[in-house]
Amino acid sequence: MFRFDEDTRLEPRGDGVAQGRVSAGWSIGANPNGGYLTALAVAGLRAALPTHPDPLSVTVHFLRPGVQDTACELRAALVRSGRTLSTVRATLTQSGEDRLEILATMGELGDGGDAQLAIAPPRLPPPDACVPRSAAAQGVTLSILDRLDIRLDPDEAAAGAARRAQVTGWVRLRDGRAPDPLACLLFADAFPPAVFGLLGAVGWVPTVSLTVDLRRRPAPGWMRARFHCSDLVDGRLIEDGALWDAQGRLVAQSRQLALLRTPSSPA
Amino acid sequence: MFRFDEDTRLEPRGDGVAQGRVSAGWSIGANPNGGYLTALAVAGLRAALPTHPDPLSVTVHFLRPGVQDTACELRAALVRSGRTLSTVRATLTQSGEDRLEILATMGELGDGGDAQLAIAPPRLPPPDACVPRSAAAQGVTLSILDRLDIRLDPDEAAAGAARRAQVTGWVRLRDGRAPDPLACLLFADAFPPAVFGLLGAVGWVPTVSLTVDLRRRPAPGWMRARFHCSDLVDGRLIEDGALWDAQGRLVAQSRQLALLRTPSSPA
Repeated sequence: MFRFDEDTRLEPRGDGVAQGRVSAGWSIGANPNGGYLTALAVAGLRAALPTHPDPLSVTVHFLRPGVQDTACELRAALVRSGRTLSTVRATLTQSGEDRLEILATMGELGDGGDAQLAIAPPRLPPPDACVPRSAAAQGVTLSILDRLDIRLDPDEAAAGAARRAQVTGWVRLRDGRAPDPLACLLFADAFPPAVFGLLGAVGWVPTVSLTVDLRRRPAPGWMRARFHCSDLVDGRLIEDGALWDAQGRLVAQSRQLALLRTPSSPA
Repeated sequence: MFRFDEDTRLEPRGDGVAQGRVSAGWSIGANPNGGYLTALAVAGLRAALPTHPDPLSVTVHFLRPGVQDTACELRAALVRSGRTLSTVRATLTQSGEDRLEILATMGELGDGGDAQLAIAPPRLPPPDACVPRSAAAQGVTLSILDRLDIRLDPDEAAAGAARRAQVTGWVRLRDGRAPDPLACLLFADAFPPAVFGLLGAVGWVPTVSLTVDLRRRPAPGWMRARFHCSDLVDGRLIEDGALWDAQGRLVAQSRQLALLRTPSSPA
């Protein structure tokens, strides 16, 4: 079993609640990564909806940081069940406190053979000519990098070096697990904040809300990703992202509202 | 009292439920506009959160069409209440059936004086040189156009005439009510589907999920909007939107997942 599958396993208890454990293997500093927690929650929803296994549109509002290496519960409620789509809401709880509130529409993704419109993937040097994402550049421990191999465009890899608030690169799971829609939820929040490219690693960027729209099932292999911050005002920013599979097909789009907490931010 | 305020009024019943009425004045064909229903729901949330009056990030999943000229109930639950942010989830119900499921983080918007990054507004001919949105072009009754004045860029106004799946234009409330964050929720879903610009008015485009991130309080006057469809596959599309106020400041960003139902779509 691959590590990502092991760490997103929830066991249904039979009353709409599933139980599992938040791993310490996908953290940024001491906090479990938001994309990992989202994937964990959606894995639980998926188990309860066998005919609609794929997240088509997932929104998560992050209430409090998750707690690594600690038990979790997912309480889910089916809001509507249709022929092609089901909508669910769910709450991920740890130690008696709600951590994530989730709203998702599930369905079944195709392989995108008949795309009428699509966003072209970014041009990137091959993975071996890109710069591995490193913990040193951000000054925190990143256990997530033991599991995820992230290679950044050399033009955008150094904090503060980019001309735009953008980060582009490659991503894959280190243990060879193929990407799927669940892994895309993780990938959608696994790159350095795009704003660091322009401003430098200026602080902490906690996510308030994250929406990921899944578009196709990814092909196996390296995926490409591009994230950019287009609007930053009053310490709140919007980061847009997109993920493409090894065949260059758009697989997911993401948007998050995040706070920019610098050492000079009001407490 | 302005019509928009009258038609988004919900009266708290005291048990977390607020009651009101879905107006027939904001419809596309016989269906209340999704942006209007979103504004109505958020107006109800706002009344319950006096210190956090502004929607910062709102996601709605549309379960069933709303019913115009019919009573509605909003059941809301406060998920987390913090110093600067509160998160709420809510369900809008009519005739005993859930219509909208909402997840929102509320707070307080500034006027955006200290923007560090911002998206520039589109260039547009002045409103009088643009083309009023008309019901005739879509072949349905649009009661919403009795309340909203929408002027489209002449290059993109005719269905099927644009080079891209994009629509750009001006918007304001006809009765002179100034725009505010609530009106932005309406404006974010009030333009013709961007995909019509490229493909023509090919069918019905029901929204599955809509996320609006509010960025600043708008200044009074005409607002500018741009929507584009960047990805269409398997009859599902993503439409991105942005709204700017009369001073050219970005006020909101939107993203929706919608279905494209053509006469040849599977039932």
